[in-house]
Amino acid sequence: MKKSMGAKTVLCPTPVLIVGTYDKAGKPNVMTCAWGGICCSKPPCVAVSLRKATYSYDNIVDRQAFTVSIPSEKYAKQADHFGIVSGRDEDKFAATGLTPVRSDLVDAPYVGEFPLILECKLLHTIELGLHTQFIGEIMDVKADEAVLDQDGSPDIEKVRPMIYATGNRTYHGIGSMQGKAFEIGREL
Amino acid sequence: MKKSMGAKTVLCPTPVLIVGTYDKAGKPNVMTCAWGGICCSKPPCVAVSLRKATYSYDNIVDRQAFTVSIPSEKYAKQADHFGIVSGRDEDKFAATGLTPVRSDLVDAPYVGEFPLILECKLLHTIELGLHTQFIGEIMDVKADEAVLDQDGSPDIEKVRPMIYATGNRTYHGIGSMQGKAFEIGREL
Repeated sequence: MKKSMGAKTVLCPTPVLIVGTYDKAGKPNVMTCAWGGICCSKPPCVAVSLRKATYSYDNIVDRQAFTVSIPSEKYAKQADHFGIVSGRDEDKFAATGLTPVRSDLVDAPYVGEFPLILECKLLHTIELGLHTQFIGEIMDVKADEAVLDQDGSPDIEKVRPMIYATGNRTYHGIGSMQGKAFEIGREL
Repeated sequence: MKKSMGAKTVLCPTPVLIVGTYDKAGKPNVMTCAWGGICCSKPPCVAVSLRKATYSYDNIVDRQAFTVSIPSEKYAKQADHFGIVSGRDEDKFAATGLTPVRSDLVDAPYVGEFPLILECKLLHTIELGLHTQFIGEIMDVKADEAVLDQDGSPDIEKVRPMIYATGNRTYHGIGSMQGKAFEIGREL
């Protein structure tokens, strides 16, 4: 028997996405977003949902671009910091000692130390209520060579991304491999 | 120095969401979806992106409803199977021995054995290209009592959801806790 929790945003896993933008003055900003993910394969698109009150909201509207940087678990404190403080009040790159890198494809910065980044042009803006969903076309994915597998793809066990647990309000790392997709289910 | 991978749907982590629907005849169906996640807090909404070619696509359009069931890692084979076979060709519940349970709130079934489920009414349909994004309002979240923590919230370490690794094309479990959100970042 299942217990009703009410109408809530409980889902697991949700990602830890660091959204990078420039403000009007050209100051780089980053914020942490768990409400997002890939939403289309062709064109390749990623969605991030932000509240209008965030500093990043206006930046995306003005610049029509954003990046998504994936922090590895060793940057858990920095990733959490990006979700606590507003870019209105602080230069978050300076505060954390991380490096803003200007994308050569879109008008937005990414976090140089994070192993995997997506550079996105704003394609759709969907008003949903408290959150606005920004859908960006992924113009390029860039990864540190150190996190690539032998086929040149990012290896999740080397990227070591985090999961945000909505119920617990905790960050978790990646666990053990449970099987190959499009393969283990053929046995049934 | 980062290496360019091209414009691709590479992101980690992505979730393993099992989307439940009824077809015209009332047959329950499920499919596996990694392109999705929470997209708004008020109203609480979850997005799932499906190709038009899927059997579930017409089901959602017809019934204006779907569920999201979260498989724990012990159901990795069943979850993978749901993503390999089409509901046109097979009764996936019968094939896997899992139980379709009719939602009492929306016109869709969920997987009885899976520990966490979301019941959704279709709110928005966004055409993106190869994928259509269905945004559902979460009418209720239901969880097995066995996966709740002492505060009555789903505990991710008891739910034991899976992650789909887009680069590796593998499923992974949940790793160790890296810290409390909105807390560990205050130290910086």
